[in-house]
Amino acid sequence: MLQRKDVLGLRDMTREEILEILTVAQEMKKRIDHPELRTSELHHTSIVTLFYENSTRTKTSFALAGKYLGATVQDLGISTSSVNKGESLIDTGKTLDQMGVEIMIMRNSYTGAPHVLARNVNAHVINAGDGSNEHPTQALLDLYTILEYKKHFEGLKVAIIGDISHSRVARSNVFGLQKLGAEVVLAGPSTLLGSAQLLGVKTTSDIREAVKDADIVMGLRIQFERQKTTNFPGIGEYRDLFGINQEVLSYAKKDVLVMHPGPVNRGVELSGDVIDGQNSVINIQVKNGVAVRMAILKLLAKGGEA
Amino acid sequence: MLQRKDVLGLRDMTREEILEILTVAQEMKKRIDHPELRTSELHHTSIVTLFYENSTRTKTSFALAGKYLGATVQDLGISTSSVNKGESLIDTGKTLDQMGVEIMIMRNSYTGAPHVLARNVNAHVINAGDGSNEHPTQALLDLYTILEYKKHFEGLKVAIIGDISHSRVARSNVFGLQKLGAEVVLAGPSTLLGSAQLLGVKTTSDIREAVKDADIVMGLRIQFERQKTTNFPGIGEYRDLFGINQEVLSYAKKDVLVMHPGPVNRGVELSGDVIDGQNSVINIQVKNGVAVRMAILKLLAKGGEA
Amino acid sequence: MLQRKDVLGLRDMTREEILEILTVAQEMKKRIDHPELRTSELHHTSIVTLFYENSTRTKTSFALAGKYLGATVQDLGISTSSVNKGESLIDTGKTLDQMGVEIMIMRNSYTGAPHVLARNVNAHVINAGDGSNEHPTQALLDLYTILEYKKHFEGLKVAIIGDISHSRVARSNVFGLQKLGAEVVLAGPSTLLGSAQLLGVKTTSDIREAVKDADIVMGLRIQFERQKTTNFPGIGEYRDLFGINQEVLSYAKKDVLVMHPGPVNRGVELSGDVIDGQNSVINIQVKNGVAVRMAILKLLAKGGEA
Repeated sequence: MLQRKDVLGLRDMTREEILEILTVAQEMKKRIDHPELRTSELHHTSIVTLFYENSTRTKTSFALAGKYLGATVQDLGISTSSVNKGESLIDTGKTLDQMGVEIMIMRNSYTGAPHVLARNVNAHVINAGDGSNEHPTQALLDLYTILEYKKHFEGLKVAIIGDISHSRVARSNVFGLQKLGAEVVLAGPSTLLGSAQLLGVKTTSDIREAVKDADIVMGLRIQFERQKTTNFPGIGEYRDLFGINQEVLSYAKKDVLVMHPGPVNRGVELSGDVIDGQNSVINIQVKNGVAVRMAILKLLAKGGEA
Repeated sequence: MLQRKDVLGLRDMTREEILEILTVAQEMKKRIDHPELRTSELHHTSIVTLFYENSTRTKTSFALAGKYLGATVQDLGISTSSVNKGESLIDTGKTLDQMGVEIMIMRNSYTGAPHVLARNVNAHVINAGDGSNEHPTQALLDLYTILEYKKHFEGLKVAIIGDISHSRVARSNVFGLQKLGAEVVLAGPSTLLGSAQLLGVKTTSDIREAVKDADIVMGLRIQFERQKTTNFPGIGEYRDLFGINQEVLSYAKKDVLVMHPGPVNRGVELSGDVIDGQNSVINIQVKNGVAVRMAILKLLAKGGEA
Repeated sequence: MLQRKDVLGLRDMTREEILEILTVAQEMKKRIDHPELRTSELHHTSIVTLFYENSTRTKTSFALAGKYLGATVQDLGISTSSVNKGESLIDTGKTLDQMGVEIMIMRNSYTGAPHVLARNVNAHVINAGDGSNEHPTQALLDLYTILEYKKHFEGLKVAIIGDISHSRVARSNVFGLQKLGAEVVLAGPSTLLGSAQLLGVKTTSDIREAVKDADIVMGLRIQFERQKTTNFPGIGEYRDLFGINQEVLSYAKKDVLVMHPGPVNRGVELSGDVIDGQNSVINIQVKNGVAVRMAILKLLAKGGEA
């Protein structure tokens, strides 16, 4: 079983740990499709979600994952308006520790916030996205989806397109894909490639070069609310230069998988026909997200017992 | 068992389907009064509430109905401020489908929104009120209450008083009562009778004519927030002309039932002594609401298994 | 078993009732530390939280207490912005009664609001804090913590420091400690001692006199949001005159317990080294809060069956 207290990022996770999560997720996915297989094995496990950034989609995915295993799931109802300082985050964590909470799931706009929490509580901490750093469960569901369709990682070419510099999804995927032997190319406006070179993968501002012969093309969500303060080129220009449409996709392999963490800005990151096309696995990713989160919850809860 | 995917309105429901729901609701009501009879038979069923219009009362009624059957109930926490467009409603629905949600309960200010959702998801959809169209579970609990006290529908005279033109409660009740053989009279300010005539029932602006010899007198809630833009006569004038008080009630049958979907604006739609009087079944309606919703959840969940 | 319908305050509770709750809480505390001991014995019990004043901490404590016993816990999601009038509080209570709710937990800024609710519903009502009146579950967890460490109450000296006049925590503790035979001294700025003398305990504006030879020193949370309208001396002046630091603590007994209902304004009511020092049981109080609330929920639910 997973021998770790927390799931904070893929940078610090071994290849074996990643593969163990993906293996358990396979078992979990059956329980989403077949409700009668759902159990109450985490009946005694107390889970709290602390979302300092709003995300109905991710929070619901975690909440349902916990409930499908029979766990107690409690949301702390933190809105963006009450963003707390570092110290009070620790106080909140210690309080929840005392209340018998075994797993804390946190999203926070500050890089490293879940790591601070993890060091100060006995509970398991799962990072549901911290600033521009990591979003490990998103990357794990992406890896699961790739493995489901391609059966292996070695030698695959994965093109990730978008605002690389602000994307925790891109970073976590790079860490995971590198460990598993896939080749990653990052593409986006040069003003938004940021420190991507430091990740040790190829970067380019030419989307066709990135997509050429790719096995996977992954669009990233443009965070309009964040772009105001950066060098974002404008929506129309972005779509023209970096939007993934059928013409762009024709450079990729014929059986390319089109992925996106969702929700898609339809007609911006991806054209409508690509979203709804036969290469798209965007809806499948959503289901796999619940499966991967169930696997992590189960492994942490059961590992803690050993 | 109920052989339908969705419960969107009473217009499209047969007399037999309505009676089946009322029959199962009878069994369910015992479980509200006797907690020890509550079961976990929907233990594996995942329910989500999507309320694009706020309604603590209706949402709580549905949530408790689900929980009393042991189901997983998750609220999506949508506020009126984030009213979504048609397309994103479908995206939300497809996402929840992927997450293993079997029943989606939606309230929306747009007429037809639940129908759009229902066509685009695999889950069962229950309409918890759409615009000025239908509110089927409210009408079903009204029908249940009438049947409980009167034992039959044939030949009953039901007077519905208020802002008919904006009332989804009135519309759903008309559809249901017509199918079950009751006579309906709609009364309200002539500016608020709207297209009521099209429903094929008698309409009048004379409340005493409507109430005369009635077996049931049902007040409708005045939606003050909506009245600003319509031809509403003013609260004082409304109360004087259409408020249901003891004098008005004296025109009805002696054993008349006084009903209201709640919450009542005390002293406006109904006078205080009528609300608290012996003919009032307003509190009973609340309990019957949970029973009818339990019945629908059970029938949809179990029907889907067959 | 506890032979009462409601838990509204310690003023009206007997010494025997208090001790019974503390005894059951001991059993409950084991279930927080050992999740595998958690049961579903309140599986059929429906609990609703109605917090007209925000308090994530107290609401979460109650919600987890209910869930650790297997109960159905539903939050009514009332924000401070929708503070309701007396009449609508009763209507809300009657509605929840009809919906099969057995226990209502309410916090309200109006003194006596839970008493009004309790008189009008069949459900058990637990006061989670009403205005400046009582906060019985906080006092019960304080009493539990004192008993846990000191093994008895007779002859103990308890110093409570802060804004006494607005503190429902202080009032409930005074009622409880008096019944159990402890000596209480209340200390605070003279402008904030209010009607404390009426409680029949010693009051002083000299913190060292209060703390001298104390077995327990309890700080109260300064409610900055309320102080604007009162005679509050200013934060710096408050800290200098009434802040509990190591120098002040040196007047107390060597094995003094330092307590605080939390969250502490670090460096105001208590200095950092006192909060984190070896006499502090502030974190333990949080755990004991869940235990005491589990005990109350269990006793009310089971007592209602007898």
